[in-house]
Amino acid sequence: MINRQFLLNNRNCDFHIALYQPDIAQNTGNIARLCVASNATLHLIKPLGFSLSDRRLKRAGLDYWDNLKLVIHDSFSDFLLINSELRVFFCTTKSNNAYFSFEYQPHDCFVFGSETQGLPEKILENNKDFSINIPISSNVRSLNLSNSASIILYEAIRQVCFNMYHNVG
Amino acid sequence: MINRQFLLNNRNCDFHIALYQPDIAQNTGNIARLCVASNATLHLIKPLGFSLSDRRLKRAGLDYWDNLKLVIHDSFSDFLLINSELRVFFCTTKSNNAYFSFEYQPHDCFVFGSETQGLPEKILENNKDFSINIPISSNVRSLNLSNSASIILYEAIRQVCFNMYHNVG
Repeated sequence: MINRQFLLNNRNCDFHIALYQPDIAQNTGNIARLCVASNATLHLIKPLGFSLSDRRLKRAGLDYWDNLKLVIHDSFSDFLLINSELRVFFCTTKSNNAYFSFEYQPHDCFVFGSETQGLPEKILENNKDFSINIPISSNVRSLNLSNSASIILYEAIRQVCFNMYHNVG
Repeated sequence: MINRQFLLNNRNCDFHIALYQPDIAQNTGNIARLCVASNATLHLIKPLGFSLSDRRLKRAGLDYWDNLKLVIHDSFSDFLLINSELRVFFCTTKSNNAYFSFEYQPHDCFVFGSETQGLPEKILENNKDFSINIPISSNVRSLNLSNSASIILYEAIRQVCFNMYHNVG
């Protein structure tokens, strides 16, 4: 039998998702639910394209919002300053590094750009070695934002928490 | 440099996602986009909780709907009959097998239940050895359906297409 709470009980399973100026409430709601499910901290970097009281945000996050580890940042520089001890990855279709080529570590942070604009060129220029992409066919410009966050976060969890999972099981 | 079209060029990267009686058009739209992005075939098993002409379905799938390999099945038994040569996994919160514990093969198929009801007990009873779950904390009942499909499909892609990816790169 498997301990379904393994994620919460493992102090190494403590990742961070940061959304840079997200546009769509429902995506942020689904990512909030993902974060509560996996014990990850959600960072929202202002300005946001919706109000934090938006019905669609809470509906997608269901009743999980109260359990969310949520940090709101007024700017990207504030976000970097406060999280200077974390290793930060920038998730973008413009990178040539496949997300599954990296070895992740506990407390890694994954930054995603807005649905419409992605991450600014300047941020990507300054962080080329830590930019990652999800390989997709050329028929599609990008995946849905919350789907992308799910794929990358659970790859980090798989790498870092997998052995522990089997030990608990 | 990496060939971004590696997925389409690799005949082993040819998985199947099946949605059993899905309720929410937007989730199916996002999964359609995921399938086009990864060259997967989408199976929809009737009855559906929405019309295939629903605006939200197409909007979430953007302009990708025309590139989708889509099969509509009138019933679950029709789906099984037509796909009898595929290995079929049943994705459910009620399983004790973590999705990353399996070794996936080209052409594997992943079935997901409806957002409100999940998969019927009888189907799960008959397929215990091929049921898989995504480990989550007890604070959350389940992940969003399209997020779950993304995590499991990309784990199969990572396992089956990873080496090829590096060879092409």
